[in-house]
Amino acid sequence: MKAEILCVGTELLLGQVLNTNSQFLSIQLNDLGYDVYRQIVVGDNASRLEQNIKESLARVDVLIMTGGLGPTKDDLTKETVAHAIGEKLVLDLKSAKRLKNYFIDKREAFNENKKQSYFPKSAVILPNDMGTAPGALIFWNNKKILILPGPPKEMETMFLKYAKALLAYSQGEFYSEKIWIAGMGEWEISKKLNESGLWNLKNPTVATYIDHKGLYIRITSKMETQQKAEEEVKKISHKIQKNFGLNFVGINEEDLITKTGHLLMKENCTISFAESVTGGMMASKLVGVSGISKVFKESYIVYSDEVKIKNLNVSKHTLKKYSAVSREVCQEMLQGLKEKSDADYCVATTGYAQEGEESSGLVYIGVYNGKTIHIEEKKYKGNRHQVRIQATMDGVNLLRKKLLEDVSRETN
Amino acid sequence: MKAEILCVGTELLLGQVLNTNSQFLSIQLNDLGYDVYRQIVVGDNASRLEQNIKESLARVDVLIMTGGLGPTKDDLTKETVAHAIGEKLVLDLKSAKRLKNYFIDKREAFNENKKQSYFPKSAVILPNDMGTAPGALIFWNNKKILILPGPPKEMETMFLKYAKALLAYSQGEFYSEKIWIAGMGEWEISKKLNESGLWNLKNPTVATYIDHKGLYIRITSKMETQQKAEEEVKKISHKIQKNFGLNFVGINEEDLITKTGHLLMKENCTISFAESVTGGMMASKLVGVSGISKVFKESYIVYSDEVKIKNLNVSKHTLKKYSAVSREVCQEMLQGLKEKSDADYCVATTGYAQEGEESSGLVYIGVYNGKTIHIEEKKYKGNRHQVRIQATMDGVNLLRKKLLEDVSRETN
Repeated sequence: MKAEILCVGTELLLGQVLNTNSQFLSIQLNDLGYDVYRQIVVGDNASRLEQNIKESLARVDVLIMTGGLGPTKDDLTKETVAHAIGEKLVLDLKSAKRLKNYFIDKREAFNENKKQSYFPKSAVILPNDMGTAPGALIFWNNKKILILPGPPKEMETMFLKYAKALLAYSQGEFYSEKIWIAGMGEWEISKKLNESGLWNLKNPTVATYIDHKGLYIRITSKMETQQKAEEEVKKISHKIQKNFGLNFVGINEEDLITKTGHLLMKENCTISFAESVTGGMMASKLVGVSGISKVFKESYIVYSDEVKIKNLNVSKHTLKKYSAVSREVCQEMLQGLKEKSDADYCVATTGYAQEGEESSGLVYIGVYNGKTIHIEEKKYKGNRHQVRIQATMDGVNLLRKKLLEDVSRETN
Repeated sequence: MKAEILCVGTELLLGQVLNTNSQFLSIQLNDLGYDVYRQIVVGDNASRLEQNIKESLARVDVLIMTGGLGPTKDDLTKETVAHAIGEKLVLDLKSAKRLKNYFIDKREAFNENKKQSYFPKSAVILPNDMGTAPGALIFWNNKKILILPGPPKEMETMFLKYAKALLAYSQGEFYSEKIWIAGMGEWEISKKLNESGLWNLKNPTVATYIDHKGLYIRITSKMETQQKAEEEVKKISHKIQKNFGLNFVGINEEDLITKTGHLLMKENCTISFAESVTGGMMASKLVGVSGISKVFKESYIVYSDEVKIKNLNVSKHTLKKYSAVSREVCQEMLQGLKEKSDADYCVATTGYAQEGEESSGLVYIGVYNGKTIHIEEKKYKGNRHQVRIQATMDGVNLLRKKLLEDVSRETN
């Protein structure tokens, strides 16, 4: 089945807002087996909006719209859809009641927002659990029009909670899984999938994605039953886990940072960081994991030579002989940190991220488990931020791999 | 003049890639005085692509296309544009030579990429300084078609360096400025602009934007001369700076973090952080500013009570009596940090960011300039990450304001 996404809002055409809704909906629709043919953004203009709705409805089975459900005159989505399909807007009493409760002490606010309770006559109303504007699903001429609010949190919640199952119904049963990979680039991952015969599959489908949490592979299957779909995905998932070895991080919510935090907590291993080039970024990422206080010990940001000497007991001689960005200094940082904090795992970074300089991108990352010290030399490309973020992710990944090795050694 | 943006790539329709190109181009086109009527995304499919090109060309004066310039059969943009406007593709010798130099030791790679040197006959070629695929600007039937590569870094560099001036030429002279604001929400900023009569202006135009670096106001003017445009923008800019007082941060590249870093360096004031709830995020953001090593002293991540006691000399009694998240502990953290690091400015945070708990979002942020201690109590909304990022930005903003006050006191 064909689908199009139509996002409504002049703020998008002005560039004031980054359109993350199209990406979210595209992933979801592809997972449900829809072919997304176009993503369109138009402004708050009735005639152009109606023209686009009609064009899309002539082409596709499902039209997903976001935005334009606010209380002001600019917000035209429901009005324009109703006009395009020849229906009237009628008051939905349940929505009005819900809205009244929302503005219980503010009669004026309710009156201003009352417009949000009117819908095309045949619409199925979708509640908005995160805001005031409800959405709607309209069945018209064997097509579906799904109307969702613009703010991403409201839109995503409404889609996942109310709309997804309704769209899935006509498409069979679906199951999908995210598999997080670390220590490899997107191109390497595709190559490895290709070699293992897992690329270009039709059902389940396998594709690589990237977001601010890292790289992942998404496997999606469509079958007669949910159970069968899950089985098919799990088969591929197990193959990928086996093929990717220690580069496999975790499934679904278990991205690199979360998984590493959970591993530390599960094994009850304490952790400390000494960060030079990453300047607190490793610690900050890990502190983002809920419950981490149980194992997170002290961490130091040791940006200058003086502070490396003062706080971590790095020797002046080593700094002078090898420079601050060296395997030797990284090693002394780890030893100093272990002495100071006595954490089960110590992680240290030192490197250059000064743009324009030839040495920029040279980074030493080390992990010390109390017995052995493991240090890697890296040469990253990119600007200051890109060097620091790569060093941060590689540092956490090194910690994760060391932890897994130690655990498997103990259990063997 | 009317413009549309047409991004080509199946990876966008699958949701594998977030479409940041549409936002970048929309901001640029609006700044140049174009009305952006639509943003469209289509896949790598020749007939649908051609249909969309023809539809857009029938409606607008300028069509900007991104993507589909790669070396593979999937990459159809130039071929399809040529077909739509009835031109042939011809080899551009200069591009071929450039590409040959790029792959100087790899004859095979050059042959694979040779497709990237062919263009519609009447195209003006735009060099790609960041990759292999050149772009093109085509003048056709009083309309312009601008063809840019898909990767954001290549696209943005090509647009700013080669295409912008060509698009601006027919539109008069432009000037725009970004004004960064801190310590206020987007709604408050709009309200203040409205009260000052600076909202809904036609030329210059004033609009608010938000990105990962914070909130900013963008002023754009179109005049007969660049000088006149700049004068008009500067008038508004001065009014805004005056009206927003200490909430005004800086202009263009001077976002909150960068500006604060530059202020510290300019005044030669050293800085240290003691972070509990923010867990290294404040230090990490500031370390992102190039050259900061000059003033950045030691920083501590003191997440647990034990480490607050051990590293900052916070008293057990205070922790027990007032709890770790209290004005009193924040004060002792600042005093301990000052004693330890002797930095000119010490900043400390302590708070709750545990989702689902009632106390979540309560944060104390303090700044100590060696003479007076200033502590603010905050109650943030949102999830763990949102609480931490708000506390980080407010902490840096508090530091910036304190610095400015101290400097102005000294100079008075």
